[in-house]
Amino acid sequence: MRFIDAEVAKLLKLKAMLNNNEEDTKSKFTLKTPKGMRDYGPQQTAVREKVLKIIGDCFKRHGGQAIDTPVCELKETLTGKYGDDSKLIYDLADQGGEMLSLRYDLTVPFARFLAQNKISFIKRYQIGKVYRRDNPVMTKGRYREFYQCDFDIATTSDPIIPDAECLRIIYEILNSLDMKNFEIKVNNRKILEGLLSICDVPSDKFKTICSSIDKLDKISWEEVKREMCEEKGLQESSADKLGEFVKLNGSLQLVEELLSGDLSKNAKMKEGLEEVKLLFKYCIAMGISDVIKFDMSLARGLDYYTGVIFEAVLLGQHEVGSIAAGGRYDSLVSLLSDNKHNIPCVGVSIGIERIFTIMERNESATNFYPTKCFVASMGKGLVEERFKLLTELWDAGIAAEHSFKTHSKPLNQYQYCEEKGIPFVVAIGGDEISKGVVKIREIKTRKEFEAKRENLIDELRKLLN
Amino acid sequence: MRFIDAEVAKLLKLKAMLNNNEEDTKSKFTLKTPKGMRDYGPQQTAVREKVLKIIGDCFKRHGGQAIDTPVCELKETLTGKYGDDSKLIYDLADQGGEMLSLRYDLTVPFARFLAQNKISFIKRYQIGKVYRRDNPVMTKGRYREFYQCDFDIATTSDPIIPDAECLRIIYEILNSLDMKNFEIKVNNRKILEGLLSICDVPSDKFKTICSSIDKLDKISWEEVKREMCEEKGLQESSADKLGEFVKLNGSLQLVEELLSGDLSKNAKMKEGLEEVKLLFKYCIAMGISDVIKFDMSLARGLDYYTGVIFEAVLLGQHEVGSIAAGGRYDSLVSLLSDNKHNIPCVGVSIGIERIFTIMERNESATNFYPTKCFVASMGKGLVEERFKLLTELWDAGIAAEHSFKTHSKPLNQYQYCEEKGIPFVVAIGGDEISKGVVKIREIKTRKEFEAKRENLIDELRKLLN
Repeated sequence: MRFIDAEVAKLLKLKAMLNNNEEDTKSKFTLKTPKGMRDYGPQQTAVREKVLKIIGDCFKRHGGQAIDTPVCELKETLTGKYGDDSKLIYDLADQGGEMLSLRYDLTVPFARFLAQNKISFIKRYQIGKVYRRDNPVMTKGRYREFYQCDFDIATTSDPIIPDAECLRIIYEILNSLDMKNFEIKVNNRKILEGLLSICDVPSDKFKTICSSIDKLDKISWEEVKREMCEEKGLQESSADKLGEFVKLNGSLQLVEELLSGDLSKNAKMKEGLEEVKLLFKYCIAMGISDVIKFDMSLARGLDYYTGVIFEAVLLGQHEVGSIAAGGRYDSLVSLLSDNKHNIPCVGVSIGIERIFTIMERNESATNFYPTKCFVASMGKGLVEERFKLLTELWDAGIAAEHSFKTHSKPLNQYQYCEEKGIPFVVAIGGDEISKGVVKIREIKTRKEFEAKRENLIDELRKLLN
Repeated sequence: MRFIDAEVAKLLKLKAMLNNNEEDTKSKFTLKTPKGMRDYGPQQTAVREKVLKIIGDCFKRHGGQAIDTPVCELKETLTGKYGDDSKLIYDLADQGGEMLSLRYDLTVPFARFLAQNKISFIKRYQIGKVYRRDNPVMTKGRYREFYQCDFDIATTSDPIIPDAECLRIIYEILNSLDMKNFEIKVNNRKILEGLLSICDVPSDKFKTICSSIDKLDKISWEEVKREMCEEKGLQESSADKLGEFVKLNGSLQLVEELLSGDLSKNAKMKEGLEEVKLLFKYCIAMGISDVIKFDMSLARGLDYYTGVIFEAVLLGQHEVGSIAAGGRYDSLVSLLSDNKHNIPCVGVSIGIERIFTIMERNESATNFYPTKCFVASMGKGLVEERFKLLTELWDAGIAAEHSFKTHSKPLNQYQYCEEKGIPFVVAIGGDEISKGVVKIREIKTRKEFEAKRENLIDELRKLLN
């Protein structure tokens, strides 16, 4: 006996050790989403769907057709399109076969789609997630996986006609989303090019000086100047000249003043200013010129822009940053098709993560729960009767559900409806079934009345309208 | 002179070589989507949106709430959930930080979401793309990136109540999509477990023999038997016994016969059969039992199923394979949460790529082009007048567009409308503007009439209804 006890003790000890080891291994398991990526719960998804519907409807109102491209592209398709930001691209592991990356935006995949299919006319929109290995700042709505809503017009055109429509689209969307206090800054890459040449910036410093200018909405001119001169080796005289011009911003009047002044002796500058002037005229015709601001400090980071550029910001919410931006890119398609095919493009991208953050706050009290009618049973053994009744409701297109228990107390069922915001209960018991009736109860008022089974759908439709 | 000519010739030769080199480098660039992934053009996307709307509406009708999870998961979240198929998972490159993979299905991310947020009740749906490094067969609708539409119920419940609703959801969706000739095969992992034990299959061979049985819809019993005995070392007597049972399929009557026979002496078998019997009863109540077929050869590949399993197939379209499938998985959440949280789940996944292929065929003639009204101008210099008119239409919610040229011939504009299927043209010229009228033209009938500008929206709305 003593022998057996000892053996049992040993075994128990071994078992305990095994369990501990198992727990050690298991506890290393991390239960989380990848860094900078997040789940959207039901309430967030419902708000998001509402926002996306408004945006999609606007795109369609402007003749936009949706397309969809893979979330992966060949690595080489993305190479050399994003300047310094290329380091933020997610690559897939080499598992044999092609080298792939996750898309960084929707513009380059769109240009690849145009080049591959030799398309020379389309108004397309695309709503999808893009991926950037950036430093995530959740509070500012900056994620590593986030949605973009892009509308682009690919066509040969007379100047600025499609560009102006892009600004109108931003205007309509922000208004529909009740973000009424915004302005759309506009500039033109041709103006920047002219400006840098006027200020004697060497042409090889064009891109890097542009990216310094682009920081003016975040840091002061003094800091930008220091970066230009000390880090990037620009002459101080050049920087000072630039400093005078990038302060300039205003309306059509400013554009016209500059056009009649010395600046427009530079051909590029003149061309750019003429385009912005035309843009203003079209914006006046569309009733949106009040929100348009010509801003010579707007530069935009991406390599591929060639003409008009723009960016919408919410006023008084500086920390939110831009919520829509875009511009003209007339050479990107040729870059992807080895010049075999080209088509000029202009487009806008709505940055909805920031809009979501604001909308979620506004819609926090909205009940998006889909169910309109809860089927309750009073008494036991009525699951099949409930299913019959549910089927009538589903067939009529009424969102309906019941308890997943064979039997539960009426009070519990009503409480569930209150929690979820289900407005009506249809209840049956043995009596109701034999009499061919149902009880309809409105949760909010606790009013209850009896209806004939054959009139149920009509009664509910009346109540739901 | 001769010297200069010679030098020029040399330089030209050098230039040509450079150009050639440049072309060589460029021509290596491949203009394509990744293997097994595809673009959806405008027509395909419109069909897809129609299908997804029908599916989403059905999910909502059953109280489903949408959630969204990242396209990437931590690699360890996916490890050990998919049996042999784990080799098909796409990994991301190690760029520092966490090891990530692309999601393989929507079920494991859902279970991770439940475990992470300790949720014990939700009816959720999710529509999103999943990724498998499988051998793509485009003609069969098998891609490496494809959509899944999942509806799952996570709750403790009395037996089979949520399971039955999943079958009803498949029924409603396939009917709404006009795929009326289908059947839903059902079986139960408990029945399979009992069966293998009755046929003396060693328990360590359970999974591998199940996966052989699963092939019965693709290869003959003789081939399956050969695989079981020769490759997997099963006794021939066991295989022969199995062979008798897996042939069995039928309706509730068969289930009841088996329940009253010898098989149900095995406890697992009895439990499984009772569940299928109850499932049939609920399906009768919901009016869908005609399409339900109990099939003892249905095994389903994935590791995580624990109870009822099911699979919908289109009859007479064998090559299409299953178009919806699912089952009960009562332990997956606990696996992801180290047993700290568990909740039983049952769910269905609609495989819409196959449905798209069929629907695209049916909808090839449907015009999805969004624009309802084209604004034409007669005469030059009217772009701003067009923008004014367009703005009135956009404000009224009417999808409208115009030419991107300052001026084009009326005939060209009408022809464009015919090509795109835009039903109406609103035309203005100098005369119309000064008289405060517009010309409205119906493209199909070529009928044209004049309307007062202030009545334009009302007139168009009448015509469009």
